[in-house]
Amino acid sequence: MNSDLRFPIGAFAPPADPTRSRAAAITRLSRIPAALRLAIVDLSPAQLETPYRPGGWTLQQLVHHVADSHVNFYTRLKLALTEENPTIRPYEEQHWAELADNGTTPVTTSLAILDGIHERADRVLRALPDAAFARTYVHPASGQHTVDYLIHMYAWHGEHHTAHVTRLREREGW
Amino acid sequence: MNSDLRFPIGAFAPPADPTRSRAAAITRLSRIPAALRLAIVDLSPAQLETPYRPGGWTLQQLVHHVADSHVNFYTRLKLALTEENPTIRPYEEQHWAELADNGTTPVTTSLAILDGIHERADRVLRALPDAAFARTYVHPASGQHTVDYLIHMYAWHGEHHTAHVTRLREREGW
Amino acid sequence: MNSDLRFPIGAFAPPADPTRSRAAAITRLSRIPAALRLAIVDLSPAQLETPYRPGGWTLQQLVHHVADSHVNFYTRLKLALTEENPTIRPYEEQHWAELADNGTTPVTTSLAILDGIHERADRVLRALPDAAFARTYVHPASGQHTVDYLIHMYAWHGEHHTAHVTRLREREGW
Amino acid sequence: MNSDLRFPIGAFAPPADPTRSRAAAITRLSRIPAALRLAIVDLSPAQLETPYRPGGWTLQQLVHHVADSHVNFYTRLKLALTEENPTIRPYEEQHWAELADNGTTPVTTSLAILDGIHERADRVLRALPDAAFARTYVHPASGQHTVDYLIHMYAWHGEHHTAHVTRLREREGW
Repeated sequence: MNSDLRFPIGAFAPPADPTRSRAAAITRLSRIPAALRLAIVDLSPAQLETPYRPGGWTLQQLVHHVADSHVNFYTRLKLALTEENPTIRPYEEQHWAELADNGTTPVTTSLAILDGIHERADRVLRALPDAAFARTYVHPASGQHTVDYLIHMYAWHGEHHTAHVTRLREREGW
Repeated sequence: MNSDLRFPIGAFAPPADPTRSRAAAITRLSRIPAALRLAIVDLSPAQLETPYRPGGWTLQQLVHHVADSHVNFYTRLKLALTEENPTIRPYEEQHWAELADNGTTPVTTSLAILDGIHERADRVLRALPDAAFARTYVHPASGQHTVDYLIHMYAWHGEHHTAHVTRLREREGW
Repeated sequence: MNSDLRFPIGAFAPPADPTRSRAAAITRLSRIPAALRLAIVDLSPAQLETPYRPGGWTLQQLVHHVADSHVNFYTRLKLALTEENPTIRPYEEQHWAELADNGTTPVTTSLAILDGIHERADRVLRALPDAAFARTYVHPASGQHTVDYLIHMYAWHGEHHTAHVTRLREREGW
Repeated sequence: MNSDLRFPIGAFAPPADPTRSRAAAITRLSRIPAALRLAIVDLSPAQLETPYRPGGWTLQQLVHHVADSHVNFYTRLKLALTEENPTIRPYEEQHWAELADNGTTPVTTSLAILDGIHERADRVLRALPDAAFARTYVHPASGQHTVDYLIHMYAWHGEHHTAHVTRLREREGW
């Protein structure tokens, strides 16, 4: 049950044949900022301060986390495209989510960051030759991945957190 | 002469006593997105495609570079605040500046990214206890630095590139 | 057929009992900028230059029109709340849609205008006492209306144009 | 003295020869959103709640007022360009400034509205033939004016309110 609340669309499953789902992954990625905005735009301040599950982040923290995470997606994408098999830099997402800006910044600020970061990433991705999607990078914990993996993973990540919002709304009748 | 065009406000000089200039550095940082916007907002598309110096980036590339660079400032700041003496991740700024998004994205998109990134960084910085400014991080090439150093360096960096724009305008009579 | 293309969700039907649908209308209004953004964000420049129906506005013109129209919604709402039964100012939407900005402005600019205008309108509406929704204004052509009418009409208007985009995408298989 | 606080750059003086100052007025207009952003971006919440003069609007109200006023500039410009000598619609600025959104909306929201509105107005103005600046409109209270008058007046208006902020900062030592 708790697992369902944490993983409303399931855990990330790497694509079996990423070349076939690549175009869809690029489209899914580009829709994340607007989909997250649509999921939260009419919520009240009190609703934004509600945890998405017992013990979880508030919806406001969650929006700010998606911005933080997708800023890291943006840098990982560009590292993979500009260096040979680079090792990227992980970050402590829980600690980032507890820094002071998460409590005081309007969610609209992080939504605007997401709009801009994803617009630039999208313009890069749509201009890439096919071969570039096979470029690799290394995550120190999980190992070597391709750009194809990266875009599928973050498409899932954005949809995963958007579902945290929409499922809470269903449960609460909001 | 070329040195003047590249370094219109001089090279970065680390502050002698950063505790005394810290508040000013935080204010200078917060003003970078609006100052850069003010420097370029009335330029025409042809002017935005002009190199800031012979052989240098165009003004449009320069705006997109400032966004890229200050996204990296944002992640470095948060790494330094959430890990013990972390090693941060450099990036190849020249290669990033040549990716396809630099040629096709409206400058307003990168200005909006800068507004959002700096708003969040500013809210973190103004809530930090004094001791946190002595926290350290390691740049693989240049060694160990403090958060104080980081904020002075990026305040300089934003002003440095804004001066590229304003000095070109003076020379061109724009 | 052509009527279906022009009115994909039907013509506006004033609410029979607006006090019952008021809360829903406020929510529907607040979601318009994000829903329109979601409908167009992954389209290519060539797709944005496609008319939503034969002889109709392009998708880009349509986004700019929604911003123009909802700027007029914003002023009408505030006129109705700050004057007694004011006569509001119509505008020639077809002529506005042909001004030069419609051809050259990125759609992201009008989406950002919509985000801001609707956020401010939403904050006004959610703070209004019930009685204020019965306040009236006069449209020179169509006569006297209430604030309740206004918010239902523009909720329809935003959904109407968003459906122009989504129906074209269905027909084109985009 | 109070007059100086209210009119820090003096009252609006219509241009003697507007064709000569037209290009400068278009540039001044385009710079207003960035100049206002630069004037307020580093202020604290308490500073934003300070009246710009005894008995005057707070800085936050003032930013929201500039957005409201320049939304009306935008509609007046387009009315003048799309109808023959139209009568435009005044509004009660004091009452608008007291509506609930002025107290609760982040100033960044109105700055983003200003960015977008002025970008679109600027793209219209820079594409206009010279003759169009002689087009006229009628303000019910002050009579007939030209588009040239309109752009000079709102360039002054934006600078007037930006000076309210910068002069308060000088007096307060902020």
